[in-house]
Amino acid sequence: MAAEASKGGKTRQRIVAEAAAIFNQRGYEGCSIQSIMAATGLEKGGIYRHFESKEELAAEAFDYAWSVASAKRRIHLDAIANPIDRLKQHVANFMTRGGLPGGCPLLNTAIDSDNGNPVLRAKVRAALRGWQTMLVGILDEGIAAGSVRPEIDRMAIANHIIGALEGAMLISRIERNDGALRQAVAHLDSYLESHRRIPTA
Amino acid sequence: MAAEASKGGKTRQRIVAEAAAIFNQRGYEGCSIQSIMAATGLEKGGIYRHFESKEELAAEAFDYAWSVASAKRRIHLDAIANPIDRLKQHVANFMTRGGLPGGCPLLNTAIDSDNGNPVLRAKVRAALRGWQTMLVGILDEGIAAGSVRPEIDRMAIANHIIGALEGAMLISRIERNDGALRQAVAHLDSYLESHRRIPTA
Repeated sequence: MAAEASKGGKTRQRIVAEAAAIFNQRGYEGCSIQSIMAATGLEKGGIYRHFESKEELAAEAFDYAWSVASAKRRIHLDAIANPIDRLKQHVANFMTRGGLPGGCPLLNTAIDSDNGNPVLRAKVRAALRGWQTMLVGILDEGIAAGSVRPEIDRMAIANHIIGALEGAMLISRIERNDGALRQAVAHLDSYLESHRRIPTA
Repeated sequence: MAAEASKGGKTRQRIVAEAAAIFNQRGYEGCSIQSIMAATGLEKGGIYRHFESKEELAAEAFDYAWSVASAKRRIHLDAIANPIDRLKQHVANFMTRGGLPGGCPLLNTAIDSDNGNPVLRAKVRAALRGWQTMLVGILDEGIAAGSVRPEIDRMAIANHIIGALEGAMLISRIERNDGALRQAVAHLDSYLESHRRIPTA
């Protein structure tokens, strides 16, 4: 029984991972059950044994895609003590460490879900909030340590980092080269430097 | 004959306008022929008499949506002599003068078309290029007139304006308020000021 449950859990996880790549590339409407069947090698019944609906599968697939992308963007961060330097590494990760095929799940799913898919929309909203909270937390740490200027608007900075990266990714996807992303990283580097405070000894 | 052709042209234009709003809100896959029939009151045959395919209709609908959005973003620009002030007005227009229902057609259609719709993708690419060219042109005018610092990277500035606006619009759509857009406008105002040059008398 336990082995069977574990096998079922593995199949479920495999469906989520395969579906995440398809949803992220083709969008909700463009992701057919046939394409998930082809990717997983499962029959329709074998997929819907694990999920009540396409909505449920899409919601879990987004969570999976976002966890993969977020983890890549956090690589090396723990090793960097200074908060401004940590934010700069985060920005660099966004460019160099691709997530899933199809680009940033937040960008894709936000556009895809803002008409008529409330479950998915709530997931996107939570993902954005988590990203903002992470960035504000790093800035707060810097303010407390005296290495970030205390008069800043932390949420405005968090939104500018997120917006500049996502907007540049949009341009880079249209142009199929990373020029705009490189420009955004350079801009954010000097933008973040302007908030650095050198603690007085 | 001429009156009939003109009536046909009007019907065609009406289909494009109605379809543009639906494509912009629901995306390519989510825009069904049924929804265009409902919006126009036409039968399927009455629609496809004017368009060879959904691809053709979607491409014309994007051009229409982009022309509406672009025109709104250019309001008042001709009356402003100073290029930096003109760019600031353009940025303000982006926030205050909504385009079609569903938000910025560039953002929506770029995400929607980058897998498997080359005609639509080419339209998006051309729209972005047009926007970049317009911004670079204003900066060039400022450099020639001595009111913009000559050492700037014009394309990097154009891309930063576009990226910051589109990224902030993404956040604003997820949050369903214009907070991030307001922050982006404030940021771009001071960003643009930093490129202003006061001509020496």
